[in-house]
Amino acid sequence: MDRAATEPSPPLPERAFTVTRPIRFSHSDPAGIVYYPNYFDMFNGLVEDWFEYELRLKVSDLVGRRLALPIVHAESDFRVPSRFGDKLDLSLLVESLGRSSLGYRIVGHVRGAVRLTARIVTAMISLDSGRAVPIPPELRAAIEAYRAKLGDAR
Amino acid sequence: MDRAATEPSPPLPERAFTVTRPIRFSHSDPAGIVYYPNYFDMFNGLVEDWFEYELRLKVSDLVGRRLALPIVHAESDFRVPSRFGDKLDLSLLVESLGRSSLGYRIVGHVRGAVRLTARIVTAMISLDSGRAVPIPPELRAAIEAYRAKLGDAR
Amino acid sequence: MDRAATEPSPPLPERAFTVTRPIRFSHSDPAGIVYYPNYFDMFNGLVEDWFEYELRLKVSDLVGRRLALPIVHAESDFRVPSRFGDKLDLSLLVESLGRSSLGYRIVGHVRGAVRLTARIVTAMISLDSGRAVPIPPELRAAIEAYRAKLGDAR
Amino acid sequence: MDRAATEPSPPLPERAFTVTRPIRFSHSDPAGIVYYPNYFDMFNGLVEDWFEYELRLKVSDLVGRRLALPIVHAESDFRVPSRFGDKLDLSLLVESLGRSSLGYRIVGHVRGAVRLTARIVTAMISLDSGRAVPIPPELRAAIEAYRAKLGDAR
Repeated sequence: MDRAATEPSPPLPERAFTVTRPIRFSHSDPAGIVYYPNYFDMFNGLVEDWFEYELRLKVSDLVGRRLALPIVHAESDFRVPSRFGDKLDLSLLVESLGRSSLGYRIVGHVRGAVRLTARIVTAMISLDSGRAVPIPPELRAAIEAYRAKLGDAR
Repeated sequence: MDRAATEPSPPLPERAFTVTRPIRFSHSDPAGIVYYPNYFDMFNGLVEDWFEYELRLKVSDLVGRRLALPIVHAESDFRVPSRFGDKLDLSLLVESLGRSSLGYRIVGHVRGAVRLTARIVTAMISLDSGRAVPIPPELRAAIEAYRAKLGDAR
Repeated sequence: MDRAATEPSPPLPERAFTVTRPIRFSHSDPAGIVYYPNYFDMFNGLVEDWFEYELRLKVSDLVGRRLALPIVHAESDFRVPSRFGDKLDLSLLVESLGRSSLGYRIVGHVRGAVRLTARIVTAMISLDSGRAVPIPPELRAAIEAYRAKLGDAR
Repeated sequence: MDRAATEPSPPLPERAFTVTRPIRFSHSDPAGIVYYPNYFDMFNGLVEDWFEYELRLKVSDLVGRRLALPIVHAESDFRVPSRFGDKLDLSLLVESLGRSSLGYRIVGHVRGAVRLTARIVTAMISLDSGRAVPIPPELRAAIEAYRAKLGDAR
């Protein structure tokens, strides 16, 4: 595997929010590798943990306020398969932050070698109207603080 | 929802392989809409059914021959949410066919209005070596026949 | 496998509501057999189809009326494993019908040989109060008609 | 909720192996509570963690030795629903240990109040023959040490 295929491009900021997930028996398919829809499920859990432990907000509180962040676009490149028993690190970067939209870049890696990358775009909506609404100010501030912490000047 | 957002672009060929999936309680999240990783799972089932009922081959036979078609890239745009009780039509088009690679375009629609679109790229590999191998001739012939049937001259 | 282990006990009524499910790649684990929580998911889909096609009611309508049928108890005996490519028949019998409770017996079989059996007990609750409420009369009547059709005198 | 319904019976040994699981958005259904097949998936993860962190063995190593522990019987009583944002503690006790069979009792609890209980029975089989084989001595010794630690004299 050459460097281009296994290293993040651009490299991950040192303080990127990262969780480690055990690859479970249940994640794996008869070929012994992770069944790919399970990665998208892991991305969702990563975002929840980023809200709770980095932004110090709770996705479940959004639901209580009749707000939701449904996924508008999701894509992932699966470079190196993962197997039962692996410990997969997942890092989250904020790729875009608009009035109602929030985009993530996610990198999955094991001991520094990239296994997969993903882009997820979400849109803040009201559960009552079904329409896009502005990202609440305290959430926006927390996201901007995270970007600043990572040296992301955008 | 304007026409651009809900109609396939380009339009679906009339004889595109299509299955209808009931949206289950279990597909839905607390906001009442399909949890998006479930769509990727449905795409996998669509491909299996396309193999079995259109190509008249079985994905499970590939596994028996130590071949697999892991997903290299998956992306999806979620335009209109689906809910418990909906019947979602999923149509499969072949977007690319290389020596070892096979790409799909998938359109999810309800009564002619597009709900989501997806692109999935797979690569034929040997489960023994883990390396790319040519798509077997009988599979290639069946895929080309499907493309010809749809008037796809590529 | 002896007769006792593979035949339903008691035998399935001829007119038991039955669906056929393709065993998917995604249902299977690295040992090549169905990962057992997926069976419980299939049971839920079976109940939904039984409501829609046998009782001519929709579970999704219950949700609209702020009613739900959460599972109180679930158990299953897995006698013979199923594999990717199998077509599993699932049959539903009503085992108990109380004021608020409804119990199923489910049998999974392939060409007449039993693969698994299950018992599921549900309770009708109000989503608003969270408390048990009587099963609505039209649902009760439909369930009783199903039991009568199967020659179930209870 | 009376004491009988929410306390374990018998009480959990103090040193029972326990993990804490965040209840995810993805675990929840349109009624806002955990979709019950997800509990069975959590039980599987609990067993994997018990192997790794308590027994100091790996379930994935069993697969490498062509052994598996498929589930023969699973049952669960769901007493109190859990919701997105809850932290559910899951504790594992060994209920039975035979030549090839291993049975668990699992208790799900939040701040000491029981949410659910389960019994899972597994059988050690050879993946090559599909037949029951004795539980390997080092696994048996580790399980017996766990039972002794919990004051379980059986």
